[in-house]
Amino acid sequence: MRNIKLTLEYEGTNYCGWQHQKNTPRTIQDIVEAALFKVLREKVKVIAAGRTDAGVHAQAQIANFTTKSKIPLPKLQYSLNSILPEDIKITAFRRVRPDFHSRYGAKSKTYRYVILNRKFPSVFLRGRVYFYPHHRLNLKRMRQASRYLIGKHDFTAFKNGADNKDKAGVRNIKSIRIKKNGDFIYLDFTANGFLRNMIRNITGTLIQVGEGNLRPGGLKRILDSKNRKLAGPTAPACGLCLLRVRY
Amino acid sequence: MRNIKLTLEYEGTNYCGWQHQKNTPRTIQDIVEAALFKVLREKVKVIAAGRTDAGVHAQAQIANFTTKSKIPLPKLQYSLNSILPEDIKITAFRRVRPDFHSRYGAKSKTYRYVILNRKFPSVFLRGRVYFYPHHRLNLKRMRQASRYLIGKHDFTAFKNGADNKDKAGVRNIKSIRIKKNGDFIYLDFTANGFLRNMIRNITGTLIQVGEGNLRPGGLKRILDSKNRKLAGPTAPACGLCLLRVRY
Repeated sequence: MRNIKLTLEYEGTNYCGWQHQKNTPRTIQDIVEAALFKVLREKVKVIAAGRTDAGVHAQAQIANFTTKSKIPLPKLQYSLNSILPEDIKITAFRRVRPDFHSRYGAKSKTYRYVILNRKFPSVFLRGRVYFYPHHRLNLKRMRQASRYLIGKHDFTAFKNGADNKDKAGVRNIKSIRIKKNGDFIYLDFTANGFLRNMIRNITGTLIQVGEGNLRPGGLKRILDSKNRKLAGPTAPACGLCLLRVRY
Repeated sequence: MRNIKLTLEYEGTNYCGWQHQKNTPRTIQDIVEAALFKVLREKVKVIAAGRTDAGVHAQAQIANFTTKSKIPLPKLQYSLNSILPEDIKITAFRRVRPDFHSRYGAKSKTYRYVILNRKFPSVFLRGRVYFYPHHRLNLKRMRQASRYLIGKHDFTAFKNGADNKDKAGVRNIKSIRIKKNGDFIYLDFTANGFLRNMIRNITGTLIQVGEGNLRPGGLKRILDSKNRKLAGPTAPACGLCLLRVRY
């Protein structure tokens, strides 16, 4: 058996997220596994580092699967990319040690949330940024607020989904970098892992700070409350992209 | 009457080019004029600096029109962008002197042709670059070949369309810059103007040089021949984008 690591690039707009779900026809995992089946004639399960939500993109998702097939990797990559739709492509293929696990082995993941903060939308980045024309966001305030989230905390206040209420909400955010590039605002989140919708909920709350409707210190209050209802709205999926995974 | 200059960003994929044509339903000019009519209740003719072909994009197309309307420009821009489809947006609006003509007044135009030269296509730039996986292109040879085209020449060999055979084919290419950025090759063409399909025909010929099927000196021979049949194929429209216009 070979353990194969692959790097994927995808635009999540047309998909119900990474993870296979019952009665959900179009997840990225399903499509990649179906493409692999066509080439390998073998049912494989593809494990991804980040289980991105519906509409979330990836610049370098890392995944792995094991196979009995001996097909050369460049040939496998070429065949798969021919079969895969144009919004999902495999950018790298590599054989790894048998114990490599793309999710459990990940030391940190970095996601980028992009806000387009101007009066008119972008033609070329439509569906890939969150177009926010309402206020000029105050980045200084947003940066100040973001500092309360750095480190090991229980992020339950920023988690969606009642189904896994009991599960621990403790995560370790290594950094939140907020940068400006013209009218684009990048929020880069690096952590050992994220709860469901955590980045989008934090972003929605930071936007409230940026527009002046919440004081930066409010982030600490919300974090401590562990109450999802106090945090801001979930920012739209289209602005989010998995940038990289470190092992 | 006010003379209004506008800057447009569009993805040309879904359109039959800029210029209005008989029996062609979807040109960008038609769509912009229809949107203006909705807001101004006045039929205006919009003149653009570059009459981009079907499938060609623009990052900063410049256009102008005259109107009797006294509507404030920020309001006009906002209303138009609300009406326009998501692949056409107006990024700037400005009142200009009455004699400003976006096409005749243009001193130079810069177009960028983008080739993606690797084994797999790009998810995020699909439809916006020319995916060329066949050979690793030799940029040194392409640059060498491009030098024969700099300056004032009769570019008839790189012109498509028999209908305007008699028209002068003389144009002045100020520069052709060929740059590499990862797997992307940018060819930036600056000239006082371009003939129909000229950039795409030059690019198709430069690709033949880059893949080793034509010597760099071949460009001079083709140029001198004024024979379209000697030049390479027309490179696909999707790789081309109007970058800027200088006045």
